[in-house]
Amino acid sequence: MQDSEMRHLWQVADEMADAARAAILPFFRGAALGTENKDAGGFDPVTQADRAAEQAMRAILARARPEDAILGEEFGHSAGTSGLTWVLDPIDGTRGFISGTPTWGVLIALSDATGPILGLIDQPYIGERFRGGGGLARMEGPHGARDLATRQVDRLSDALLFTTFPEVGTADERAAFQRVAAEVRLTRYGMDCYAYALLAAGQVDLVIEAGLNAYDIQAPIAVIEAAGGVVTNWQGGPVHDGGQVLAAGTQALHRAAQARLNQA
Amino acid sequence: MQDSEMRHLWQVADEMADAARAAILPFFRGAALGTENKDAGGFDPVTQADRAAEQAMRAILARARPEDAILGEEFGHSAGTSGLTWVLDPIDGTRGFISGTPTWGVLIALSDATGPILGLIDQPYIGERFRGGGGLARMEGPHGARDLATRQVDRLSDALLFTTFPEVGTADERAAFQRVAAEVRLTRYGMDCYAYALLAAGQVDLVIEAGLNAYDIQAPIAVIEAAGGVVTNWQGGPVHDGGQVLAAGTQALHRAAQARLNQA
Repeated sequence: MQDSEMRHLWQVADEMADAARAAILPFFRGAALGTENKDAGGFDPVTQADRAAEQAMRAILARARPEDAILGEEFGHSAGTSGLTWVLDPIDGTRGFISGTPTWGVLIALSDATGPILGLIDQPYIGERFRGGGGLARMEGPHGARDLATRQVDRLSDALLFTTFPEVGTADERAAFQRVAAEVRLTRYGMDCYAYALLAAGQVDLVIEAGLNAYDIQAPIAVIEAAGGVVTNWQGGPVHDGGQVLAAGTQALHRAAQARLNQA
Repeated sequence: MQDSEMRHLWQVADEMADAARAAILPFFRGAALGTENKDAGGFDPVTQADRAAEQAMRAILARARPEDAILGEEFGHSAGTSGLTWVLDPIDGTRGFISGTPTWGVLIALSDATGPILGLIDQPYIGERFRGGGGLARMEGPHGARDLATRQVDRLSDALLFTTFPEVGTADERAAFQRVAAEVRLTRYGMDCYAYALLAAGQVDLVIEAGLNAYDIQAPIAVIEAAGGVVTNWQGGPVHDGGQVLAAGTQALHRAAQARLNQA
């Protein structure tokens, strides 16, 4: 892909993230917040903000990139002709969102048949944006801009590990996670997609999750890979279609964590 | 206490929080970060930022309030003659701090013999400050200022519950926590002192923790009580000296959670 085309794609992605911010923030911690249950058996809140943000992003694509396909968390798949697909999660971390924590994010990825080409993680409340792909690995926030680069931690005993829920997934998945957690320096919870941004920024070393969807992980893959990290499923294969995710700052740390996950 | 005296005390507290922000932010996510182990047996990081911030706050008190006592996490107790004590935790949530999460905070309280009179929770990276006491219950952040008021949720089944670590404390403390967690709408982890700020802001309904020190909880007590909430130990008594903390947005919710905690 030519540089000029990549610059255009980043312009579109940033415009989409700006529109999502504007759509979501009036609902965050606001009286206007509306929630409903998507799944009557569990607790899966969907907010008006989620839908407003995806609609705002789709409106930009309809004008700027009508030839591309779209896969969105709220409004599903729309076909395209370019071979490129925008993969959108307007609010990743809806439980964090309804709790008022600044750990949710807007996830935007652009993918071809091989996986994500570029990805963007945005935290609208803090005003932080993490971008990776097409030669870019960069964050901007309230205290300035800096390049993204994963930390060179190769041993589990030196690593900081994040996951969102202590239960992780099934009982087997939790047991596998615990084999890794038992060996790391520190395990923390509850950061939603923000944990992947911290990994790309060199603040933490491992993120391990299960049960993810394509739209949850494609943007993190692009950002982390651009920052020098490794993102696969627990077997070491591609994870851009979702499932069990193992993200690490270095190849050596990734190998060590993968070995523990599969050692049952 | 007269209004003019209370205004003066708030000016001092804000000046201290501003100084702590300036002292800490260069170390957050920065190359200058230095950590060491306070406890050789565990993982209890102390940063240079922690010490620099407490020194900056103590320097302000030496000039503006030399007659008051000080209890600080890093430099211990300094005697006074006024009957008032400033209770300082320069970085509450050091594990969050070293992980790069914006969930740690600067905690400042002013107490007399009966407990905290005023309290301040500051999150320097986001630029958010939560203040309560002396007629004030107010937050200021990147998207403006608003009054603090706890949410009127009286039933466990409607409540959002936070704690920092899934293990909570001892095995018995964890079991007690789980009796509450089993009945609430949603349980989340990993927010450090930010969870208390979210409770005062009406975003979450319960925070339950164990093993806290006086400097961890005095500022949250003042902020949450000013916002209409209730903070006690698990037996319903005063908790300003630390220990097991039960913070709730309403009296009814506090009673319901306390009953579950003590129902072994």
